[in-house]
Amino acid sequence: MQWYVVASLLTVLTSSQGILTTLSQSDGSYKYDYATVPFLAEIFKLLVSSILLRRECLRSPPPLMTTDWKSIRLYPIPSIIYLIHNNVQFATLTYVDTSTYQIMGNLKIVTTAVLFRLFLRRKLSNLQWMAIFLLAIGTTTSQVKGCGETSCDSLFSSPIPGYMLGVLSACLSALAGIYTEFLLKKNNDTLYWQNVQLYTFGAIFNMARLILDDFRGGFEEGPWWQRLFNGYNVITWMVVLNLGSTGLLVSWLMKYADNIVKVYSTSMAMLLTMILSIILFSFKPTLQLFLGIIVCIMSLHMYFAPAHMLVDLPVPAKTAPETLVEVSVDRKTDS
Amino acid sequence: MQWYVVASLLTVLTSSQGILTTLSQSDGSYKYDYATVPFLAEIFKLLVSSILLRRECLRSPPPLMTTDWKSIRLYPIPSIIYLIHNNVQFATLTYVDTSTYQIMGNLKIVTTAVLFRLFLRRKLSNLQWMAIFLLAIGTTTSQVKGCGETSCDSLFSSPIPGYMLGVLSACLSALAGIYTEFLLKKNNDTLYWQNVQLYTFGAIFNMARLILDDFRGGFEEGPWWQRLFNGYNVITWMVVLNLGSTGLLVSWLMKYADNIVKVYSTSMAMLLTMILSIILFSFKPTLQLFLGIIVCIMSLHMYFAPAHMLVDLPVPAKTAPETLVEVSVDRKTDS
Repeated sequence: MQWYVVASLLTVLTSSQGILTTLSQSDGSYKYDYATVPFLAEIFKLLVSSILLRRECLRSPPPLMTTDWKSIRLYPIPSIIYLIHNNVQFATLTYVDTSTYQIMGNLKIVTTAVLFRLFLRRKLSNLQWMAIFLLAIGTTTSQVKGCGETSCDSLFSSPIPGYMLGVLSACLSALAGIYTEFLLKKNNDTLYWQNVQLYTFGAIFNMARLILDDFRGGFEEGPWWQRLFNGYNVITWMVVLNLGSTGLLVSWLMKYADNIVKVYSTSMAMLLTMILSIILFSFKPTLQLFLGIIVCIMSLHMYFAPAHMLVDLPVPAKTAPETLVEVSVDRKTDS
Repeated sequence: MQWYVVASLLTVLTSSQGILTTLSQSDGSYKYDYATVPFLAEIFKLLVSSILLRRECLRSPPPLMTTDWKSIRLYPIPSIIYLIHNNVQFATLTYVDTSTYQIMGNLKIVTTAVLFRLFLRRKLSNLQWMAIFLLAIGTTTSQVKGCGETSCDSLFSSPIPGYMLGVLSACLSALAGIYTEFLLKKNNDTLYWQNVQLYTFGAIFNMARLILDDFRGGFEEGPWWQRLFNGYNVITWMVVLNLGSTGLLVSWLMKYADNIVKVYSTSMAMLLTMILSIILFSFKPTLQLFLGIIVCIMSLHMYFAPAHMLVDLPVPAKTAPETLVEVSVDRKTDS
């Protein structure tokens, strides 16, 4: 499968995630515990990967699987980074408001590219660096509060630790992605086996979070396994399946494409969500959304288009198309 | 002189034009007739060009000067286009508000590039086209009304003829620039002679406007030559000299560089004015101004940087620097 097909699918699914999550509310609030969604999504991903791995194991030759502890022990690391990230995110939000947090989230695009260069030692051209910055600027532009909207003035007025935590948050989020790419590409193990390891630890860490929530809440609503499906409706299940599917696609992209492709995919999804919100929830379109979308599309073209499409290069002299000449001679003889 | 020195000077002078014009107000209003400023600026440009032309004529060999009517009759055309443009601009403003008009003004960047391609047959690379669009997007982004500002909602709500006139206005403004470039480059006449022709007609058309204003106003304040310097102070004179100087620089750029350089120069000036306004008039900086500036700087780099700086091209193998080797050998013998 071509990477851009997977990336496009990821864009569509990620953008529907936001829409579905909004639709899963009843009377403007969530009737279910949102923390159960990522746990169930991990279980879904684990199930799908296990089935696919089993199918592959029955074939010959059997797939490559590194099973020694030295390799397996690396797989909880992305989960651990995400755990730290979630706590930093929580701390950040005590200093800054959600819209400032959202704006700072675009930093992740730049930090991912920086870590991609530093840790994975992948070189980007000058133009690709500019494309990365433009993507971050485009997404930020699209989020600029419209004229007349409420809750103004908060953007440049948060305390300094808020911004520092926001930067740390962007770095951690990027690090988790970069580490996952390193993990999936470091050997030729089958992706399904790598996924099984990733999602097993993912499920464990998500379960730990649910248990922790129980202790924090003093078991007021009973233990997590009793309230697991409380308030679930069809759309909630769609949210779970959708989140699981996007996870599987991200994992595929990390193995066969890279983090930058994933970043473009999810950034485009954010813009698509905003466009869909205009149609579905009659949000008012702003000029800055329109401008941001154009900037992001240009960035996409700048990053992925081959150099000869962008700048005028001396085209290497082609050899004479002899077959074509022969064909036309044939035709003349025929008529 | 290098074109980028002239372009930078144009940026500084154009941006100070806005600042000076604001400073030339007394008690928040203009005490002088603003229509007299461009007329006096034309006279200033005519004087400077005449003096420089005369000096050049005294040298040998004398400069090239085409003096037949067939050539001279082309020189009022830019003034005529500007005259039509001013009327279209006036008509546009009856349909749209000033901030919508300002936003639409950025279209001029794109129309200039289009006419540059069509009429002057100058090819731009794919990347340069993207840079042009990014410049227009960047300047537009910087002008997006901030959250909480007054007079909202008007941007997408003007009647259709307003937008059509805005596009026409952008085309006419670009056409005047492109035509001037064609005029100045069509032969090897000295720039000073070409300027004398341009500004003579410029002065005539500006005078005609002042006369027309007199008739429209019923000579209530007397004929234009009596009220020419009414309410002028030192800053008003600086506005005149500044406008005249920018005109001379633009003319130089049209002859020795091109319209795109001029467009970059004036767009950067607009951003510089906004930055200076923050410092001088304590305007509140917005996130969109910051984003717009970065986009414009990237656009500048994309347009003017040589291809090998932007994309990774195979570098042609260099010949061994033999002279350098010889020098070092010489030195060794000397010591």
